[in-house]
Amino acid sequence: MAVYTEVFDEDLTDFLRHYDLGDVVSFKGIAEGVENSNYLLQTTRDSYILTLYEKRVEPADLPFFLGLMRHLSEHGITCPTPVADRNGQDLRQLCGRPAAIISYLEGLWPKRIQPFHCAALGGPLAEMHLAGEGFALQRPNSLSVAAWRPLLEASAADADQVCRGLASELTAELDFLEAQWPQALPAGIVHADLFPDNVFFRNKALTGFIDFYFACNDYFAYDLAICLNAWCFEPDASFNITKARLLLNAYRAVRPLSADELAALPLLARGSAMRFLLTRLYDWLNHPEGALVRPKDPLEYQKKLRFHQAVRGPADYGLDL
Amino acid sequence: MAVYTEVFDEDLTDFLRHYDLGDVVSFKGIAEGVENSNYLLQTTRDSYILTLYEKRVEPADLPFFLGLMRHLSEHGITCPTPVADRNGQDLRQLCGRPAAIISYLEGLWPKRIQPFHCAALGGPLAEMHLAGEGFALQRPNSLSVAAWRPLLEASAADADQVCRGLASELTAELDFLEAQWPQALPAGIVHADLFPDNVFFRNKALTGFIDFYFACNDYFAYDLAICLNAWCFEPDASFNITKARLLLNAYRAVRPLSADELAALPLLARGSAMRFLLTRLYDWLNHPEGALVRPKDPLEYQKKLRFHQAVRGPADYGLDL
Repeated sequence: MAVYTEVFDEDLTDFLRHYDLGDVVSFKGIAEGVENSNYLLQTTRDSYILTLYEKRVEPADLPFFLGLMRHLSEHGITCPTPVADRNGQDLRQLCGRPAAIISYLEGLWPKRIQPFHCAALGGPLAEMHLAGEGFALQRPNSLSVAAWRPLLEASAADADQVCRGLASELTAELDFLEAQWPQALPAGIVHADLFPDNVFFRNKALTGFIDFYFACNDYFAYDLAICLNAWCFEPDASFNITKARLLLNAYRAVRPLSADELAALPLLARGSAMRFLLTRLYDWLNHPEGALVRPKDPLEYQKKLRFHQAVRGPADYGLDL
Repeated sequence: MAVYTEVFDEDLTDFLRHYDLGDVVSFKGIAEGVENSNYLLQTTRDSYILTLYEKRVEPADLPFFLGLMRHLSEHGITCPTPVADRNGQDLRQLCGRPAAIISYLEGLWPKRIQPFHCAALGGPLAEMHLAGEGFALQRPNSLSVAAWRPLLEASAADADQVCRGLASELTAELDFLEAQWPQALPAGIVHADLFPDNVFFRNKALTGFIDFYFACNDYFAYDLAICLNAWCFEPDASFNITKARLLLNAYRAVRPLSADELAALPLLARGSAMRFLLTRLYDWLNHPEGALVRPKDPLEYQKKLRFHQAVRGPADYGLDL
């Protein structure tokens, strides 16, 4: 939960002069999201989210993220859409930060995942993958396998403070992942951070996706592997095969998975567990004193990684092959 | 900024079954307020604030606070009003906390105080004081002069870590305040925490007051003294006599100040500075490691206290006597 940049009234008023959104009725910082500052902006016209992009977001990537949201919206995916200013620009500056106004998406993110959430997630995820086709911009995944070695090296010296033997466990896993990482799978635009807090529901129906600030070009099945980790484990780290089956079957009802994709799923799930384990480990070891955001437990992803290491094949995820 | 208690979907759904508010459209934690957890709840009917009362609020005081908000609303003061459940109850339990739904107040709190804000504040503050008359419940001010000695004693040993000589400076001031504190001034319901973040504006007009969780019975002029400290000093701690004059004159245009109240104003301002200095000092010295809320600087109030100590009389606040 976080609001990093405080926006003063006059700054807001000046900023909104560039838009055609009516008068401000209310403006409140939202205690969600850990990367950027988000405000709920209510005007006489509608509700919006005003986002100030903080230091973890690369400004050069913003046209990709905002353009993608607009592209997906225009291709039938429910997600926030940038609101252009009077000159047709999506991106402006506010309080020294890049800032954008995006449309407000109704719904609540699920705090306790039920099987029906996983069943509802698969289809729209596949639709998003299909809808990304034709988006003109590209962004390589800056947190894929090539990024993991430097991340591990940055944390290796202190990793054993978190869990004895962690550094050598991760080194061995990374050696394996680097050697085995697939060279060619169906790829395109992926969300790459589709945790439950980025998926909204209303009355058991999925209402849309938010937070595209890790979106990039990568294997579609890698996005699915991220969801397996984020949606199909219980709080005690046990794997819920019912949820996985519902998620995967709902996905492949819309976008069938090739034999190669199915075969790669356990490896991609290990890779996805590695990615979140490494970034959480880094944040755990490097979060500043008095930070407003509590770092997430890296060891949750150690347990998930170990589960996938023991998987014999995609059938262990509940799939009928 | 804070949300201390996370509300799960099912808990929210169960809770809202007791109300007649339509379907939930959105539910977001608000990054404002330091005492309680506040959520913006949007339903098919309207927007509301759902508050979970955290440990600093005494549950036995909640009927006073909620009853006061309803009383003031019914007497022409714009402030959030509790929304009763189907049984007419204002207060329920949610996630093991006392919880209430209150109406949503439009407006923004001013981050940078301009003279017009002070001019706009005085009248409604006086109106609130008058409107409190007839409210049936009483709540003594648990943070008035009698509370300051124990607060100081709890921090005295470590106070000089914050500023050399602070413990003895505060002891001398407290001796003075205890000896000189007025015995009888016009009293009634006061807000007792009317900082800018508790006052909303829209287009330069005050739209209402929020956060009545320090409200109590005390001298009206003490409430005004709190506002002098909270609204009439610049960020560099210099006193802005123009703002003070506007605030005080707007107040007494609605509720004239007696000669006794005017004479007591410098003392009450010292007392008010003392109250916030002591609670901030305590929080500064005792905030838990990794707390989500940054403690506020106690020394801001040391500077304000010293200003009031040098005041010769109420004319130094810009008043024509």
